[in-house]
Amino acid sequence: MTMDAVRLVEVGARDGLQNEAQTLPVAIRVELIERLVAAGLQTLEAGAFVSPRWVPQMADSDEVLRRLRQHPGVTYTALVPNLQGLDAALAAGCREVAVFASASELFSQRNINCSIDESLQRFQPVLAKAAEQGVAVRGYVSCVLGCPFSDEVPMADVVRVARELYAMGCYEISLGDTIGRGTPGRVRQLIEACASEVPVTALAGHFHDTYGMAVANVQAALDAGVRVFDSSISGLGGCPYSPGATGNVATEELVYLFREQGLATGVDLPALLEAGAFIDAALGKASASRVATALRSKAARPR
Amino acid sequence: MTMDAVRLVEVGARDGLQNEAQTLPVAIRVELIERLVAAGLQTLEAGAFVSPRWVPQMADSDEVLRRLRQHPGVTYTALVPNLQGLDAALAAGCREVAVFASASELFSQRNINCSIDESLQRFQPVLAKAAEQGVAVRGYVSCVLGCPFSDEVPMADVVRVARELYAMGCYEISLGDTIGRGTPGRVRQLIEACASEVPVTALAGHFHDTYGMAVANVQAALDAGVRVFDSSISGLGGCPYSPGATGNVATEELVYLFREQGLATGVDLPALLEAGAFIDAALGKASASRVATALRSKAARPR
Repeated sequence: MTMDAVRLVEVGARDGLQNEAQTLPVAIRVELIERLVAAGLQTLEAGAFVSPRWVPQMADSDEVLRRLRQHPGVTYTALVPNLQGLDAALAAGCREVAVFASASELFSQRNINCSIDESLQRFQPVLAKAAEQGVAVRGYVSCVLGCPFSDEVPMADVVRVARELYAMGCYEISLGDTIGRGTPGRVRQLIEACASEVPVTALAGHFHDTYGMAVANVQAALDAGVRVFDSSISGLGGCPYSPGATGNVATEELVYLFREQGLATGVDLPALLEAGAFIDAALGKASASRVATALRSKAARPR
Repeated sequence: MTMDAVRLVEVGARDGLQNEAQTLPVAIRVELIERLVAAGLQTLEAGAFVSPRWVPQMADSDEVLRRLRQHPGVTYTALVPNLQGLDAALAAGCREVAVFASASELFSQRNINCSIDESLQRFQPVLAKAAEQGVAVRGYVSCVLGCPFSDEVPMADVVRVARELYAMGCYEISLGDTIGRGTPGRVRQLIEACASEVPVTALAGHFHDTYGMAVANVQAALDAGVRVFDSSISGLGGCPYSPGATGNVATEELVYLFREQGLATGVDLPALLEAGAFIDAALGKASASRVATALRSKAARPR
């Protein structure tokens, strides 16, 4: 990858759908992912091997992974909370998985029921076995710019968790602004702090648009040297308990942002808009992407 | 103003409401503006002296201006297309007006029915009379990063129009991304180009969020030295012919963006949210502000 390209990690079918109120059938999830691949996305979250009691939206992730067609250069990933999850992912043919830690002690306790250190210990055997099997592991760090349960998340804690996940063998660390509270100045500081311990080429930005700051935060991370960004088709995600709240930054916005600045993503915007229209219709809701809304109303307008 | 403060120009009651499908009565427009003043905004567009046949939403702007209470430090402005408009604004007690030119020849022809040069000539007597009367004039330049009717707007044309308006006596030049197509890299180039001819302290940024880029563009202009930004309560504006299309960047987003980066705006966010709720209810539509949506759903959530 040259410095005038950006890699997008499409998280709509996992981080996105997992935070939608509805649970979609396997066939719809598979069709969504295949449409996103057809649009040019090459790294896609396809599911999570977590308990369907807690996350019903991700039930049958093994079935989703088995049904997906393989394409050269395309990687499907799945979230695995522990060794059992990894085994299920391997059985479903996964060649890349992701682990999920938090930079906030309180969020770690409430979200995954253990301390940050316990979560990192739990990932040790996951990373060891993945390495044995030649499976790549991506590390997520959540709450990097704020936590829903505590006022402040010290930047030093973000740097420590990122460094430890990288040292354990995660090939890439995705820094997640889970509650979308970040602003560009703090994003720059965060990337600089993390890049002092982890190569900037191994950092990814994962921004939520809850406060409408995500595109500005992506640009700030880009200016600080980050070239990998997570995004979600149609801005899927939000929060099932907050009607109208916005979720992950929309993939459409990032493709537009980068294209207009001469950065290649390999994604075809019209095909992406079609994938977005497909999932909007399946969920029966309006797109959270302003690029999609603008381009659709432009296309519909009489000339 | 020190360098750690930003001045907001609230355009919701003019640029915002003028582009909403509904026409609101004078009493609602006055109450909106007074709520915005109570929230701390000090420069507010209150109306336009244009033909109500073309812009029914701005009918009775004289009445709006007459009814508004005066407050120390608060300036109400009105758009005036020509000398007749200026006379009407002066009669209504306006102490500041704005003139509106375009950087796009085609937009100028279709929007105000004359060439760019003709529009500038038409402003000469307006600026002369305003100077005589001690009335400040702000200059708008539209289409600075693209035009709805032509493919490209040369940056040299933007710089020329900005320079001429400034030379004629406009104290501030508001650079408007009318169609919201700009991205941060081009915004930086634009500000640098204009700042070579007009002092950067006399430049303002006016960004529309049609493609979700406005907050990122504001940050880019801020980084380039701009300290005055136009915004619209609740993101009012959009386009009456494009349902769902987004308009001016929401004032709530800018207050949040600046506050989180330690820049003072003098605006109280809770009071601003109430003003937004008032106008949303009057128009019967949901807020286009993500900050407003997020903070309202946060407040509504059980603890």
